[in-house]
Amino acid sequence: MSLFVTFEGPEGAGKSTQVRRLAERLDDHGVPHLLTREPGGTELGVKVREVVLESDLDIAPLSEFLLYSASRAQLVRDVIRPALDDKNVVVCDRYADSSVAYQGYGRGLPLDFLSTVTWEATGGLMPHVTFLLDLDPQEGLRRAATRGAHDRLERADLAFHERVRRGFLTLADASPERFVILDATRPPEALSEAVWFLVSRTLGASS
Amino acid sequence: MSLFVTFEGPEGAGKSTQVRRLAERLDDHGVPHLLTREPGGTELGVKVREVVLESDLDIAPLSEFLLYSASRAQLVRDVIRPALDDKNVVVCDRYADSSVAYQGYGRGLPLDFLSTVTWEATGGLMPHVTFLLDLDPQEGLRRAATRGAHDRLERADLAFHERVRRGFLTLADASPERFVILDATRPPEALSEAVWFLVSRTLGASS
Repeated sequence: MSLFVTFEGPEGAGKSTQVRRLAERLDDHGVPHLLTREPGGTELGVKVREVVLESDLDIAPLSEFLLYSASRAQLVRDVIRPALDDKNVVVCDRYADSSVAYQGYGRGLPLDFLSTVTWEATGGLMPHVTFLLDLDPQEGLRRAATRGAHDRLERADLAFHERVRRGFLTLADASPERFVILDATRPPEALSEAVWFLVSRTLGASS
Repeated sequence: MSLFVTFEGPEGAGKSTQVRRLAERLDDHGVPHLLTREPGGTELGVKVREVVLESDLDIAPLSEFLLYSASRAQLVRDVIRPALDDKNVVVCDRYADSSVAYQGYGRGLPLDFLSTVTWEATGGLMPHVTFLLDLDPQEGLRRAATRGAHDRLERADLAFHERVRRGFLTLADASPERFVILDATRPPEALSEAVWFLVSRTLGASS
């Protein structure tokens, strides 16, 4: 069956670990699936990723949001929608909620504008389930430093990351039917059990 | 004085020639000015230009528009507004009208959406004067082929270019106080005289 699952949360919360573990479970159970991430997932997305995350350019917050949205529009059109149409489980590492949290709550761009652009970029496609790996920013930055990851988001200040966290939690509060908030300080094994419990139940319930 | 002048029209209409000639006239008269272009004009803009115009990627029309808008937001913030604040004449080779003509009329993206994003990206900054170098698409493509320029816009089909031309002319009709339509088949010298007549009168009238 088609199911669109996203993972959200700050750097260092363990999103990519959970995406990988979910993919292994889906493999074990023979469930057709596709993994992707934002920005990225298409040739255009890879180029956007290089520009936004791997360069030292001073990019205006609005431009940053528009670049992410350009990547997102291409990803939805070329990858996510076709995979869902083919009855895949699509697992995406970050999606539109990240833009609202980072560029909206974090950078202060108007939320209604972000919403308008995102609606157009995604054609209104929202995830069925979003796992928010919630983590205190201090802990997230400590983790990111430990693994030597220092992209532009991670170098921003702590107050910014506090606003981003509040953004994610506000989004989760507003859509409890979609969001599952997970405490990212729990062991990865416990988190992946919680993720699989919900995903397998959802798949089982409608298969 | 500050004055924001843009040149619009299809590839091959002679925009860059007219921009250069206008710059020479401004130099001759000691008028402080700045030349720029879209996409481009900033480090981010140069990267966007590489991705959109100089790569062979298949880019979704919506993504293309969002990439141009990202470049535009950065250009307005970092280059155009500061130059206007410093009492420069800013001359830009393409601006928001190109997005409406190419991605709106040409590719069929909703005009109200383009307008919403453009307003946010530019903070509502519109040119004081826009010279539209109007050219029949058949002639434009012939000229572009002659000079060996074959970017992705030029490879699109003739019906597309007809829609783009209609878009530019519709924009010009809707804002006669801003647009000057010039017949791009006239000799470059005659066109630059017409441009300078209007610019110098505008500068003289308020100096």
